[in-house]
Amino acid sequence: MARKNNRKPEQTRPITFTRAYTDQTAGSVLAECGRTRVLCTVSVQDQVPQWMYGKQQGAWLTAEYSMLPGASSPRKPRDGRTSRPIDGRSFEIQRLIGRALRCAVDLSVMPEVTLWIDCDVLSADGGTRTTSVNGAVVALYDALLWMEEQKQLRNWPLRGLVSAISVGLCDGVPMVDLDYHEDSAAEVDLTVVAASEGKLIEVAGSAERRPFTGEQLTTMIGLAQTSCAEIRELQKKVLGI
Amino acid sequence: MARKNNRKPEQTRPITFTRAYTDQTAGSVLAECGRTRVLCTVSVQDQVPQWMYGKQQGAWLTAEYSMLPGASSPRKPRDGRTSRPIDGRSFEIQRLIGRALRCAVDLSVMPEVTLWIDCDVLSADGGTRTTSVNGAVVALYDALLWMEEQKQLRNWPLRGLVSAISVGLCDGVPMVDLDYHEDSAAEVDLTVVAASEGKLIEVAGSAERRPFTGEQLTTMIGLAQTSCAEIRELQKKVLGI
Amino acid sequence: MARKNNRKPEQTRPITFTRAYTDQTAGSVLAECGRTRVLCTVSVQDQVPQWMYGKQQGAWLTAEYSMLPGASSPRKPRDGRTSRPIDGRSFEIQRLIGRALRCAVDLSVMPEVTLWIDCDVLSADGGTRTTSVNGAVVALYDALLWMEEQKQLRNWPLRGLVSAISVGLCDGVPMVDLDYHEDSAAEVDLTVVAASEGKLIEVAGSAERRPFTGEQLTTMIGLAQTSCAEIRELQKKVLGI
Amino acid sequence: MARKNNRKPEQTRPITFTRAYTDQTAGSVLAECGRTRVLCTVSVQDQVPQWMYGKQQGAWLTAEYSMLPGASSPRKPRDGRTSRPIDGRSFEIQRLIGRALRCAVDLSVMPEVTLWIDCDVLSADGGTRTTSVNGAVVALYDALLWMEEQKQLRNWPLRGLVSAISVGLCDGVPMVDLDYHEDSAAEVDLTVVAASEGKLIEVAGSAERRPFTGEQLTTMIGLAQTSCAEIRELQKKVLGI
Amino acid sequence: MARKNNRKPEQTRPITFTRAYTDQTAGSVLAECGRTRVLCTVSVQDQVPQWMYGKQQGAWLTAEYSMLPGASSPRKPRDGRTSRPIDGRSFEIQRLIGRALRCAVDLSVMPEVTLWIDCDVLSADGGTRTTSVNGAVVALYDALLWMEEQKQLRNWPLRGLVSAISVGLCDGVPMVDLDYHEDSAAEVDLTVVAASEGKLIEVAGSAERRPFTGEQLTTMIGLAQTSCAEIRELQKKVLGI
Amino acid sequence: MARKNNRKPEQTRPITFTRAYTDQTAGSVLAECGRTRVLCTVSVQDQVPQWMYGKQQGAWLTAEYSMLPGASSPRKPRDGRTSRPIDGRSFEIQRLIGRALRCAVDLSVMPEVTLWIDCDVLSADGGTRTTSVNGAVVALYDALLWMEEQKQLRNWPLRGLVSAISVGLCDGVPMVDLDYHEDSAAEVDLTVVAASEGKLIEVAGSAERRPFTGEQLTTMIGLAQTSCAEIRELQKKVLGI
Repeated sequence: MARKNNRKPEQTRPITFTRAYTDQTAGSVLAECGRTRVLCTVSVQDQVPQWMYGKQQGAWLTAEYSMLPGASSPRKPRDGRTSRPIDGRSFEIQRLIGRALRCAVDLSVMPEVTLWIDCDVLSADGGTRTTSVNGAVVALYDALLWMEEQKQLRNWPLRGLVSAISVGLCDGVPMVDLDYHEDSAAEVDLTVVAASEGKLIEVAGSAERRPFTGEQLTTMIGLAQTSCAEIRELQKKVLGI
Repeated sequence: MARKNNRKPEQTRPITFTRAYTDQTAGSVLAECGRTRVLCTVSVQDQVPQWMYGKQQGAWLTAEYSMLPGASSPRKPRDGRTSRPIDGRSFEIQRLIGRALRCAVDLSVMPEVTLWIDCDVLSADGGTRTTSVNGAVVALYDALLWMEEQKQLRNWPLRGLVSAISVGLCDGVPMVDLDYHEDSAAEVDLTVVAASEGKLIEVAGSAERRPFTGEQLTTMIGLAQTSCAEIRELQKKVLGI
Repeated sequence: MARKNNRKPEQTRPITFTRAYTDQTAGSVLAECGRTRVLCTVSVQDQVPQWMYGKQQGAWLTAEYSMLPGASSPRKPRDGRTSRPIDGRSFEIQRLIGRALRCAVDLSVMPEVTLWIDCDVLSADGGTRTTSVNGAVVALYDALLWMEEQKQLRNWPLRGLVSAISVGLCDGVPMVDLDYHEDSAAEVDLTVVAASEGKLIEVAGSAERRPFTGEQLTTMIGLAQTSCAEIRELQKKVLGI
Repeated sequence: MARKNNRKPEQTRPITFTRAYTDQTAGSVLAECGRTRVLCTVSVQDQVPQWMYGKQQGAWLTAEYSMLPGASSPRKPRDGRTSRPIDGRSFEIQRLIGRALRCAVDLSVMPEVTLWIDCDVLSADGGTRTTSVNGAVVALYDALLWMEEQKQLRNWPLRGLVSAISVGLCDGVPMVDLDYHEDSAAEVDLTVVAASEGKLIEVAGSAERRPFTGEQLTTMIGLAQTSCAEIRELQKKVLGI
Repeated sequence: MARKNNRKPEQTRPITFTRAYTDQTAGSVLAECGRTRVLCTVSVQDQVPQWMYGKQQGAWLTAEYSMLPGASSPRKPRDGRTSRPIDGRSFEIQRLIGRALRCAVDLSVMPEVTLWIDCDVLSADGGTRTTSVNGAVVALYDALLWMEEQKQLRNWPLRGLVSAISVGLCDGVPMVDLDYHEDSAAEVDLTVVAASEGKLIEVAGSAERRPFTGEQLTTMIGLAQTSCAEIRELQKKVLGI
Repeated sequence: MARKNNRKPEQTRPITFTRAYTDQTAGSVLAECGRTRVLCTVSVQDQVPQWMYGKQQGAWLTAEYSMLPGASSPRKPRDGRTSRPIDGRSFEIQRLIGRALRCAVDLSVMPEVTLWIDCDVLSADGGTRTTSVNGAVVALYDALLWMEEQKQLRNWPLRGLVSAISVGLCDGVPMVDLDYHEDSAAEVDLTVVAASEGKLIEVAGSAERRPFTGEQLTTMIGLAQTSCAEIRELQKKVLGI
């Protein structure tokens, strides 16, 4: 299976991050990966959830993910306007984003605030969850900078950046960063979130058609680690660190 | 009250339209007015609502409006994720958008499709409803062009463009295109949607503090008509018509 | 187009207000306009909404509007019993009622209570929103009288009465107080809420079919002002003021 | 415990039925019992529920019950406007109304329609469920008359009238038709729905404080049967049968 | 009509109670009656509802009832996963369970806790509401024992056990403990909840097809009292009291 | 960290399957793993979802997962009774169960039915998702046997059994089948679903505290494969295959 634009199996689509895309929130990043485009904002709320009141446990971080109706074709009905409950896929993805970012930051050394990570997909062409993670961590960095400027931080709480990529098995060939078309044809779909030095934060692989072997998994994870390292460099570059 | 950037009372903020901002829908326009930024998409669904089945009444057009959580500060809770019902304001606005666009197009000469107008506010600084209308009609134009290319149209159904602007009374002075800060201080808030030659499609004015006179209304509508004509020229220019 | 009962274009249907229609609330008025019948009650709750706690900003006033299932034909499904969300029309109307009544009363000189305005349509034949406003202000007057008797008011907070009427353009002829049948045929539909001396609180006009001119709007508003003044006299008479 | 207005234990409050109270539905009756006031409408929908399609089982009858927010003090939050689910009490009552009326009418000899019974409480002072049943059967009669006029009925489907009353045990004394104040103090609360000749359709008794004996139940049912017979006469009189 | 397994009209199906069926809650009983199987748990929450805060009124007790999707055939859609509201039948039943258990226990002598009674039907073959009551009171007994061990009780609050049974009229013959098949054919369906010495807590009888007489009701209640006494003995036996 | 009952790191808790636990559905299995207890039922509905109508694509399979309120301590509020939306965790788990079982069966060779897999947790002590998968596949086997008896199957559609286990990293030591207590302390939590010969269907690992290495993942997967093979033997034994 030839990839669009002669992409090689181990090659991601062009990935860019636009910081300060909007200006109402502490962090706001437009993350793009090929035709996939996600607006990631980080809002700082001066309050922790009720179950954390008065426990001096620092900050809370929570993520929400959604697709705009026009982000895909056919149009996706809008959350909350029909009797349809929110689809389980959105919940699954936002839980992944939340876990990934909670690994990146030491909430216990922060003041009692809630960090709201919002990932809204403006255009969807595969890889919306990994693009969300990649953009959200850049937006989180900006939000922490803003808090620092506001003298709200005594310690710099970021442990490090995180980056994410998908890997698929298509006709037995492992390929990174599947677009929508490739994803529909993949036998196995793997999402990897990585920390520095290739350490793993999240590994989620599903056989879509037939089971896979431990060896195939190891190969796929290796590919993912390389891509995640490249994305980390892009993140560092855009952040100037 | 001095306006930001020395804006004159009858002067709008810079208004721009970016066509084909995303590419999953028949029409997709990023409409900006100052710091206010709305993504307007038009999706064409090959089906009319159930109550129109088999009645040969042509197309249906419906609009939905929503603000992203990070579009304003403080963060706005996301529709459908809390037990909170959708706020009435969103309903009010999307009904306005739908009425305005149904005036612009002769649905009866179109095939049996539903035109979904989605206006999602990426950044809110006053004027989100008028920016939605202005952008949506450009996106609708593009969607109709797309349908024409697809040989789905026997007639060109657009009756004309529509444009919209807000006018406020601030300390007794009528001013167009209020930003969020100005809007909070206005005594009267008026939204006008206009067709060609200054004809009116929608006039919605509310006294926020004290009642206004018919003369004041006439003055405000006059200002709105001028601004709407200017916006119409911008729309034509970006559409090349 | 001849009107039912030979009504003239500038003539409203018979309008009546029955005070103390029920006796569980501080104010309770049955407002009738032709076959349209709305029960307007005002409940006084000894509490302001949470966001006003301890801010010493006086009272809060909020309105809710709904139609009984049997108020129209065919039957309207009951709110909250189906998965259908509340229709946007109800939200739009109750927001109008709330704004109109908040203009009539100076909440800042009142104690920390919430005034709940409930407008429930028992029978619908056009003009339910204007009949709601007209009845609600009479019920509000009674509720304030009751509060005064309870020694809850140090100042009389009512700034003045408000009254409302619809005006339509039918075959180019402006007519006040459209019934359901006329409303379905109107090209333009205008709602006006007026304060004393013809001052305007709310002007909401929509072209249903084709745009209208500023002159037509001015004529329609003039008609509305006359009707509103008549209704104000009826309100005063029934209140004995 | 003395009753208000020197009512005797076996005496109901004044009960009245106003037919054709509104005119949008096939049947519309305002039923009053003391200060309790319920608007009962019957709408005829030309369709049976989906699970009865094409089964030739005749008509379906379903009831809905709700209290207006201003029907009681303190105000009752409106169904569907808060995140609060419909309260179980309303479901319990509307199921009772539905069962009672389905006993009164032979649905199998009717055409394939749905009879919607809507009971909306305008003012609540105890006995809203029995007043609903009593008024609904009168409205049902009117709806059937209307269907007959429309030539929709080949057979007269009403088997007979039904009437309902509550009986309470207050300080050991059985009393019929408790008002809100009495109901709060009763040890046992019994609702009886009766057909002709004292036959029973529904008997629902609950100990609020301490259990009761079979003998007490028999006495209470006897009282209820007498009241139900009286109400039946009132129903016949207002219907002229 | 012959009964399955040659059951006599006055004979219940085999009834068993398994205490400590699960071990996460203070009380947990699997109650079985023929093929009907209900898991009854009692959770003790260290908090009363908000409206009882600081009123020193003792404990609160509330019940919830639900059927697992696979408890019946065809499968029953799961609460909360579809847009379907909870069915009124579940509300009706859980209100009955709550009332019955509140009669069994003197909440005013208990500490400020909430007793959550959960009745989840694992398999449904008629009699799920009575089996719920019968099992719940055994689980409540265990929960109170647990609280006593925890030194949370100064007084033993149980006034006595309660037991429940259904009685039906099938072809004019009264029969206790109807299974699903019998229940579908019954003309009258009666639920009785009894305290000690045959005293009545709840009597709920409905004519499904034709009205019944007071004499029939008396006979049915007599049968129910006998069965309830038998079930009480089973409860005592399993509790060792 | 010593394990309860001196369990070794590579040792699962006692696992049992009770077939035909209830009898209303085609398959019904009580799956137990230590104190964790899940009722897995499979209902066969003679219909595919609407989007599969008339496409001759065979059967559809969908899973739902929920915990009974009393399955954990403190009590978990019941789905659909509060305004709380279903928690994302339940959605995540039921999507996992569905994917796992769709891998086990060739739906395309089946008739047009929907297989509803319901996993209801009666008691939760860690491992509810893996116990659900393990029990569900046994229940699915029984449901297919039942369909075969009903002559509904032309081909035996089961490709093979699937089994699942969790592995955690506790103080750096990999351990299988974590109970609730162990799970709370684990640094990494991995769920593995395996097919025959150790092939992988699902691998989902999350760092709870600190990232893990690819080597650690490989070790953990190896442990999981061994446990999954053991569970597969238990499944075969209980099914007699």
